[in-house]
Amino acid sequence: MTDPSPRPFRYPVPELGALPDDVREKILAVQEKAGFVPNVFLLLARRPEEFRAFVAYHDALMEKREGLTIAEREMIVVAISTAQACLYCVVAHGAILRVRAKDPLIADLIATNYRKAGLPPRQRAMLDYAMKVATTSYLVSDEDHEALAAAGFTEDEAWDIGAIAAFFSMSNRLANATDLRPNPEFHSIGRR
Amino acid sequence: MTDPSPRPFRYPVPELGALPDDVREKILAVQEKAGFVPNVFLLLARRPEEFRAFVAYHDALMEKREGLTIAEREMIVVAISTAQACLYCVVAHGAILRVRAKDPLIADLIATNYRKAGLPPRQRAMLDYAMKVATTSYLVSDEDHEALAAAGFTEDEAWDIGAIAAFFSMSNRLANATDLRPNPEFHSIGRR
Amino acid sequence: MTDPSPRPFRYPVPELGALPDDVREKILAVQEKAGFVPNVFLLLARRPEEFRAFVAYHDALMEKREGLTIAEREMIVVAISTAQACLYCVVAHGAILRVRAKDPLIADLIATNYRKAGLPPRQRAMLDYAMKVATTSYLVSDEDHEALAAAGFTEDEAWDIGAIAAFFSMSNRLANATDLRPNPEFHSIGRR
Amino acid sequence: MTDPSPRPFRYPVPELGALPDDVREKILAVQEKAGFVPNVFLLLARRPEEFRAFVAYHDALMEKREGLTIAEREMIVVAISTAQACLYCVVAHGAILRVRAKDPLIADLIATNYRKAGLPPRQRAMLDYAMKVATTSYLVSDEDHEALAAAGFTEDEAWDIGAIAAFFSMSNRLANATDLRPNPEFHSIGRR
Amino acid sequence: MTDPSPRPFRYPVPELGALPDDVREKILAVQEKAGFVPNVFLLLARRPEEFRAFVAYHDALMEKREGLTIAEREMIVVAISTAQACLYCVVAHGAILRVRAKDPLIADLIATNYRKAGLPPRQRAMLDYAMKVATTSYLVSDEDHEALAAAGFTEDEAWDIGAIAAFFSMSNRLANATDLRPNPEFHSIGRR
Amino acid sequence: MTDPSPRPFRYPVPELGALPDDVREKILAVQEKAGFVPNVFLLLARRPEEFRAFVAYHDALMEKREGLTIAEREMIVVAISTAQACLYCVVAHGAILRVRAKDPLIADLIATNYRKAGLPPRQRAMLDYAMKVATTSYLVSDEDHEALAAAGFTEDEAWDIGAIAAFFSMSNRLANATDLRPNPEFHSIGRR
Repeated sequence: MTDPSPRPFRYPVPELGALPDDVREKILAVQEKAGFVPNVFLLLARRPEEFRAFVAYHDALMEKREGLTIAEREMIVVAISTAQACLYCVVAHGAILRVRAKDPLIADLIATNYRKAGLPPRQRAMLDYAMKVATTSYLVSDEDHEALAAAGFTEDEAWDIGAIAAFFSMSNRLANATDLRPNPEFHSIGRR
Repeated sequence: MTDPSPRPFRYPVPELGALPDDVREKILAVQEKAGFVPNVFLLLARRPEEFRAFVAYHDALMEKREGLTIAEREMIVVAISTAQACLYCVVAHGAILRVRAKDPLIADLIATNYRKAGLPPRQRAMLDYAMKVATTSYLVSDEDHEALAAAGFTEDEAWDIGAIAAFFSMSNRLANATDLRPNPEFHSIGRR
Repeated sequence: MTDPSPRPFRYPVPELGALPDDVREKILAVQEKAGFVPNVFLLLARRPEEFRAFVAYHDALMEKREGLTIAEREMIVVAISTAQACLYCVVAHGAILRVRAKDPLIADLIATNYRKAGLPPRQRAMLDYAMKVATTSYLVSDEDHEALAAAGFTEDEAWDIGAIAAFFSMSNRLANATDLRPNPEFHSIGRR
Repeated sequence: MTDPSPRPFRYPVPELGALPDDVREKILAVQEKAGFVPNVFLLLARRPEEFRAFVAYHDALMEKREGLTIAEREMIVVAISTAQACLYCVVAHGAILRVRAKDPLIADLIATNYRKAGLPPRQRAMLDYAMKVATTSYLVSDEDHEALAAAGFTEDEAWDIGAIAAFFSMSNRLANATDLRPNPEFHSIGRR
Repeated sequence: MTDPSPRPFRYPVPELGALPDDVREKILAVQEKAGFVPNVFLLLARRPEEFRAFVAYHDALMEKREGLTIAEREMIVVAISTAQACLYCVVAHGAILRVRAKDPLIADLIATNYRKAGLPPRQRAMLDYAMKVATTSYLVSDEDHEALAAAGFTEDEAWDIGAIAAFFSMSNRLANATDLRPNPEFHSIGRR
Repeated sequence: MTDPSPRPFRYPVPELGALPDDVREKILAVQEKAGFVPNVFLLLARRPEEFRAFVAYHDALMEKREGLTIAEREMIVVAISTAQACLYCVVAHGAILRVRAKDPLIADLIATNYRKAGLPPRQRAMLDYAMKVATTSYLVSDEDHEALAAAGFTEDEAWDIGAIAAFFSMSNRLANATDLRPNPEFHSIGRR
């Protein structure tokens, strides 16, 4: 049986009232929208400068509305987060993926084995590249970029795929180093 | 978007009517109980002798009512099936684990990273041993068996842990070699 | 110097007289044929249900007389058993392979490096697929099945190759988890 | 012979005049200080939002003046950047490390094998943890944090070590995905 | 079926008569003693300078009569040659090991899994160190040398173990790069 | 800060006066030429027979004046020595490579990631083969030799590439097993 009320992460949970205004307001805005405060915001609030940079970087990559769809961006997160077995990233972004893709099954499939998830060739090529960036980026070569081009991606979209894989490679490690746990709410979101 | 009605596996789906009686009856009994026919039964029905041996072996290890709890047995299956990224095993046995453990979160956590799932020491030791058997069995040593004993497991329970890890190491590979997919029903079972 | 009379496995050796009749008779039949009782039978006799399922599964895959030759089946066992460094499987099935292939050298070569054993293309393709199933089954794809077809294998033979690789992936782990040792007799069988 | 004037990265080099003011001013400020524009700034300038978030995150972790010394922070960067064989990060941060540590040899040693670089126990513990976060963060456990504490690090310093390892895990992947090359100037800086 | 008369290696077999006198005499002396010319001598004869250096180095390490026994030296060769799956080294030195250890079983056991071969603690420690030198020498540390000392090895014996592991790490790679095959005679030597 | 005067290796430094004449003379000749005694000579002097064989083998492969250039030979050494993270080999042969290639940057680039060093196709093919011999020689196949031929290498040059990779695979392991450190002088040689 899993612990019914585990610590959300290795560090003390900060008091909302003691946080800088912009950090607290961001947290309250997310809570307003999601109905709960995702643990990653409480974790990073311990370090306001890092909080701000993380959120800004995240939003630049994940909230962009051109090129990759927002569901595809989340597919990348779920796929590459399995490479570092990141509890928070797989479960929380699995939920977001289900919502954005309007598909209750896709997150479990990609979280287990994206190669056997029955994805169309475009998304398979996207995740092959993302996974290579996440795991063996030192092998990335012109051939990989040509494969993306052949699958219909522009060079700017290639940047997005690589940058999302890179950003969540950071995020996975932050979460694992701090024992960040997903909020229980994430498990059931988007399952219909 | 995942394919809405994908092939359940690489081989043709056999006609129920053409199967040997015992195989068909087993399949109907499972359907009666679960409400649908799990794809693994349809896959193996192509080979009745293998079907019977698989089911007999499975039940000897998984339906046993002494030693490990039936939830613990499923925890082993989910944990070790991630080592071969087995879509069917992780999703289907994740569902069974949620039901048997009466815990809607546990399967996602173990499927992502059992080491960070917040499990009690007994189950952590159980899964450490199972994972070693599944991935680097050539390194299993007296120290591993002593660690199991220290966690309270008898030598017969150690056999069970190892045998379940071994059996599903087979099962993972059968599923991956045949592109066996989990039935959609499994994704939502036991989530409340 | 290796121990002249080591324990055959980690668990107590069961008394033949105390075993269920069918298990004892199977053991005596094997002894009659081979001249000694292979240790795997004594190991599994501790668990009669598992014994029966193991033997039934084994025979369904290894004693089949259509498709793959019986020597080819043993080649798969020896090749994939090196992936888990299984003492019992490599030595015992190496002996059977020498006998079935009527080739005193083949087992040592395949046990060391099947890729450099000088095998004909058909058997090389067979072992490449078997090894992939045994080690990285999550990567098995249509291309692998096409390679088997190009080497002349039917889809039913592909199943056999995969299923043998899967079954002995289980067997390797059972043997390693229980420290099963090969009987000394196996080392010299079939060497002329 | 290496190419005497290779492309600095896979994407077109942006015109300074076409960049947003803050980005251009940051670049000119760095050029003023270093005598040249490190290629990473020209690369990221293509994406001003990402540029700003990257610089803010970098400075929050690397320019901090409490806890870890600034030389230790660069040691982490060089050590973990070898795990993804990042040309830019190893060479450029190797130069910064030589300057900050006032040690012309240290960067080559850490870039080759920090375990054999003859470091004092404190820095060895720091790099062991950083390397674990960079390569197998899913295995990070209480024992790792206890080892840091035993080496004299506070929990806030543990965060810094982990966060620097995580941030440059991102940075390594961005550089490798875009074929970012180090400026030639970096190779000779700090060698006396 | 393995090829009954395969090429002994990738390069042409040199004419004995065309070789420098000392090389030819060494080859004839070995033939005199063994009853056949081991293929490695014919391979290296293509390069007389390398032949002489190889033989001199080999004999300095393997024919020494103090410290490690000559059987122990061969145990190291067989064990570490499995790490590169070297056909020639495992089969040829397996034969020499059987003769020197007067043990018909030991080579097969060490070639499959030295950790489960039932070796006494001294030889287990010796092979653990040799294997670490062969596979992850960058991790060798004081602790490894302390473990050797605890098992009764002097620092000069530690050198021998490491140097034999290193020398055959070269030898394994030469053999694999040139497709060197073992002479058929080796398979049956020393099996009684 | 790295230790200002570390031990050059794990074993005592031998007295020059106590060495056999030929060994001492070789050491003095190298000192005359280089201005200092590279630590590897002092290490191996403990074992005169091994010293002589090592030097003879080294010179046969590295001082040859036909086929590969002497700079290319050093490129192989630096590239493959990263696979075992050998401090001495990467730093000392990095220096020799800078001198022989008359290129102050090349060693750092190859030591970090030869695949991204911007090398011409011939040298890229050479290092791909060398790296395969150094790391996974059991996979070397006809295709690898065909790739070398396509890049313009003769079969004798293929031997040289493989043999250099093999010889320094030994050398890397000797250095790592004995904690051999590079002389400080090597770090700055050839940097202009």
